[in-house]
Amino acid sequence: MRIAVVGATGAVGKECLHLLQQGVVPVDDIVPVASGASVGRDLNSELGLDLPLAPVTTVEAVDFTKVDVAVFCAGADTSRAEAERAAAAGALVVDNSSAFRHRADVPLIVPEVNPHLLANRPATNLVANPNCSTIQLVRALHPLHAHAGLDEVVVATYQAASGGGQRGLAELADTSRRRLADPDASVDPPGRFGQPLAFNLVPEIGLSDDTGFSHEERKIVAESRRILGLPELRISATAVRVPVFDCHSETVRVRTRRPVSASGVEDALATVDGLRVYRRTESPSYPMPRQVALTDESRALVHVGRIRIDPDDDHALWLWIVADNLWVGAALNALNIVSVATKTGWLA
Amino acid sequence: MRIAVVGATGAVGKECLHLLQQGVVPVDDIVPVASGASVGRDLNSELGLDLPLAPVTTVEAVDFTKVDVAVFCAGADTSRAEAERAAAAGALVVDNSSAFRHRADVPLIVPEVNPHLLANRPATNLVANPNCSTIQLVRALHPLHAHAGLDEVVVATYQAASGGGQRGLAELADTSRRRLADPDASVDPPGRFGQPLAFNLVPEIGLSDDTGFSHEERKIVAESRRILGLPELRISATAVRVPVFDCHSETVRVRTRRPVSASGVEDALATVDGLRVYRRTESPSYPMPRQVALTDESRALVHVGRIRIDPDDDHALWLWIVADNLWVGAALNALNIVSVATKTGWLA
Repeated sequence: MRIAVVGATGAVGKECLHLLQQGVVPVDDIVPVASGASVGRDLNSELGLDLPLAPVTTVEAVDFTKVDVAVFCAGADTSRAEAERAAAAGALVVDNSSAFRHRADVPLIVPEVNPHLLANRPATNLVANPNCSTIQLVRALHPLHAHAGLDEVVVATYQAASGGGQRGLAELADTSRRRLADPDASVDPPGRFGQPLAFNLVPEIGLSDDTGFSHEERKIVAESRRILGLPELRISATAVRVPVFDCHSETVRVRTRRPVSASGVEDALATVDGLRVYRRTESPSYPMPRQVALTDESRALVHVGRIRIDPDDDHALWLWIVADNLWVGAALNALNIVSVATKTGWLA
Repeated sequence: MRIAVVGATGAVGKECLHLLQQGVVPVDDIVPVASGASVGRDLNSELGLDLPLAPVTTVEAVDFTKVDVAVFCAGADTSRAEAERAAAAGALVVDNSSAFRHRADVPLIVPEVNPHLLANRPATNLVANPNCSTIQLVRALHPLHAHAGLDEVVVATYQAASGGGQRGLAELADTSRRRLADPDASVDPPGRFGQPLAFNLVPEIGLSDDTGFSHEERKIVAESRRILGLPELRISATAVRVPVFDCHSETVRVRTRRPVSASGVEDALATVDGLRVYRRTESPSYPMPRQVALTDESRALVHVGRIRIDPDDDHALWLWIVADNLWVGAALNALNIVSVATKTGWLA
């Protein structure tokens, strides 16, 4: 299989290459695609990889008739400009951006939740990868719905700087250094996150519309309903950027249709592939972003802890969910979509 | 009036002195109390103040029959050991710790919410200052209840390192410096926050009990119900420590008994003394902890933004609340209690 990674030098694209190196999807040939400034770079030597990689090329220069799969991770503008051309040429496009997520003719897939929507090749040749916050959320909510029935979901997020790409990561490091060197310095100017993030919180991710909800919050609501197949689900969110480098965290309040117990929920989630449950009897009984980011094994999982039921309401529980937004929330989900498509047989 | 500040060299005690310097409560004489190691320190010169301050003494050495008011901010152990002796000697004790908050004969006061409970001097001579997260929460919920009736409250907190005192602040700075100098360093050992906080999140504040809820979360529930005078209120919380130096933030989901509009809620809160409302038409439409910490004026207020109603449910809204946990959440609330007691006349 020949795979193009569009945005190969970005935060998500690089993680795609690392995951391909690990054999998440077997490939014969990789076409790394980036902007003109990166043409000719040898990403094997830059990233310490040993992949069947061509030199970096631009998206305009790619002949997509000779590409089986194109993973787009260069942002919505590039996707809007180039992804349909790639799909029309015959490549299966898995798009990481929000460009096509709202389209009824483009399946929005989390392989652990709704892989059946890939039973047949989409006529558009397009598959959308959901928003990072949504993916880790629905991977915990899907088995919980089977266990107890979702009645209402209230989410507060704690999202990492890596969601702002390499520029976001560098900015958090630079501005944090500056604040530590001079605590009395004035607050930094707005940067990648619209507001200074160092030792601060930015409670708006993406622009707010007339309702007051931010783009990130609207994505969590609309995409979760669609992926879970629950268009009427009561779900609402507040999305907050926090001064953490890697991994998004979420505290999730769920009202269930049937009564629940903490051990029942722990048991129901613990049997699900790809979920790591931290039981109340463990110490600590919760995941944390910095620890989850440490190993490839934990970066590949959705971590759920602090499972607890309101003492006076056995239809109300809390979850604390942590996952690597670049892996679980982006590159790994995209490659898992490719893997599902391969297994269906229609992706020759 | 003669006032003793017990724990005067700690994070909250120092803020008490700064606020006394500003004349929040008129005093004739201040007795600063700390541990033996601090005896004799001159806090006026250390803190750049010009107060009627005696040299630092120990709590055992204080003759509380000669003290009108004692503000205890040295932690629950000191309060349990010494506060009742001070109260029995005739001093009005305003206690910042959790030692007496559960006692029916000790009023738990937020002056903007339930000052009427101080109409008469408490027979115990004890008044409890609530938990920091609770104070900023109920100051926004109280007028919202009058406006629309509270049906259910779901809180997720983003709490600053200053809640762990000066040691917590120093630890966040030191461990952040270390992480920036060596990104590949192993995660720091647990310190003041039970887990490493630098560029991390610690989703458990205080010990969890059999229900799985942490001490901080149980305090928010029990104290909010009591202060609001709503013992049956449906309220639940997740409390998370975040790598921010000053000011606690909270995202609060409220289900109301009557339908609400965003502008109606903005208007209702904007008229309340001590609240600063960020309307949807402002930019930014929300407060942030690092900015709130910058000036004395903003440190003295509760800041509420991102007021928004669910598009498909006019009984469900969100608030984003930020306040300085050392001022609004501790020292300033305690001194405001003293101020109310002074005005009632029973505190001669």
